[in-house]
Amino acid sequence: MREIYTGKTKDVFLRDDGYVLLRFKDTVTGVGDTVDSGANEVIGEVAGKGRSSFNLTLRFFELLHEAGIPTHFVGIGPDVNTIIAKRARSFRLEVVCRAKAWGSFVRRYGNHVREGDPLPSLVEFTLKDDERGDPLITEDALVALDIVSREAIDYMKGTARQATALIAGHLSQRGLELIDIKYEFGEVDGRTMIIDEVSGDSMRVACQGRILLQTELAEAVLGRA
Amino acid sequence: MREIYTGKTKDVFLRDDGYVLLRFKDTVTGVGDTVDSGANEVIGEVAGKGRSSFNLTLRFFELLHEAGIPTHFVGIGPDVNTIIAKRARSFRLEVVCRAKAWGSFVRRYGNHVREGDPLPSLVEFTLKDDERGDPLITEDALVALDIVSREAIDYMKGTARQATALIAGHLSQRGLELIDIKYEFGEVDGRTMIIDEVSGDSMRVACQGRILLQTELAEAVLGRA
Repeated sequence: MREIYTGKTKDVFLRDDGYVLLRFKDTVTGVGDTVDSGANEVIGEVAGKGRSSFNLTLRFFELLHEAGIPTHFVGIGPDVNTIIAKRARSFRLEVVCRAKAWGSFVRRYGNHVREGDPLPSLVEFTLKDDERGDPLITEDALVALDIVSREAIDYMKGTARQATALIAGHLSQRGLELIDIKYEFGEVDGRTMIIDEVSGDSMRVACQGRILLQTELAEAVLGRA
Repeated sequence: MREIYTGKTKDVFLRDDGYVLLRFKDTVTGVGDTVDSGANEVIGEVAGKGRSSFNLTLRFFELLHEAGIPTHFVGIGPDVNTIIAKRARSFRLEVVCRAKAWGSFVRRYGNHVREGDPLPSLVEFTLKDDERGDPLITEDALVALDIVSREAIDYMKGTARQATALIAGHLSQRGLELIDIKYEFGEVDGRTMIIDEVSGDSMRVACQGRILLQTELAEAVLGRA
C-alpha cells in the first residue's frame, strides 16, 4: 500500500488489491481562528474530527446507496477512520448545491442577495485549484475546456440535487438545517458518480441559526458515542 | 437635459424628449501603465479616444442593424462624440463572448487553458459590480436571483454569438482578429436588446498577434481621419 494523495483533511492510499483507502484526519479548514468547512486553508486540528467525518460519510453514503445513488464506497477499512473505495478519476471539481445563500456566494453577489436568503437548490461548479481560489466555472466553459462532457454535467446537477434533498431531509428530521453542500464527482469504471466523502467537511449545517462545527454535527446526526 | 450617469469612459444624460444622450470620453481603463479595455480602472486619458469609441460604435451598431439585430441606438447627437439612444433599463451585466482565451479567463482557468487558445464563441455573464471585481455568475444563479429571466438569457447568448460572428467577420476583412468582446443588454419598451456601446472599449482585437489600442483599432477599421 502506498500513499497517492495527501489532502487537507484526508489522505489517500492505493492498496495492493487496486482499491483505495481514505483516511480521515483531525485537521480542520477555516479562515484565521474560525473553522469553516467552506474554506480552503488548514488552520489546526480538532480531536475527534476525523472520526466524525468518517462516521458521517458512512451514514450519508448509506443514505445515498439506499436511494440508488452510486458512490465509489466499498466498505469500512482495516485501520481507524478509514474507508475502502473504488479507484476513481476525479474531475477535480466541486459541485456545490445551495439551499441558502452563504459564504462565497454572498461574497460574490452581495449586491443581490443576503446571507440566509433561500435558493432553489442552486448548483454551481468550481475548479479544485487552491492557487486560483477554486474559481467558479460555467457549464459551457467546462465543456469548452474539455473538463467534462455535457452528459456528465447533467448527471452531476441532477444527482447533486437528488442527494441534497435526501441529506437535507435526514438532517431536518433531527432539527437541523442544511445550508449548502459540496460533492466531488469522478469516473469509476467508465461511469460518473459521487466520490471522495460526504461529511461535515462537505457541508454547512445550522441548528437554531448557528452553523455547527463538524464534531457537533456528528453528535447531532449520530448521537453521542 | 440632466446627467443621469457618470461612467468610466462615457457620461449619460437624459434629454427633455425622453431619449438619452451618450457622450464618449477620452478616458482609458487599464492596470498600472497598461491600457486594457478588459480592466476596471481608469488610468488616464488618450487624446482622440472618445472620438474613436464614438465612430466605432456608429460602425458596429450599423452592422448590427443591417443584420436585423436591434439596439437602443437612435441617431448621432448634437454635440461632439455623442449619440442619441432610447432609454433602457440596464440588466447591469456584461455578456462576454470569447473567441480566444485572454485576460480574466486565463487568470481563472490557467490550469486548463493558455492565452490565445481558441474557444467556441464561449459566452459568460458577469455582474457589473466594481466593488466585487465584476464577478462571474452562472445562468442558473441569474435566474435564482431574479436578475434576468431564462428567456432573456437565451436571447442574450444567441444575440451575443450572432453579433460577434458579424463583428469578427468585419474585422477579419481588415486583417484583424477579434479575441473577445463584451456587450451590455437591457430592456427597452419591454424588449431585451443590446444597449450602451460597441467600441474599442468593448473588445480586444489583435493585429499580427499584438492587441491594438482603441485609437489603433479605429484607424484600422475606419481608415485614417
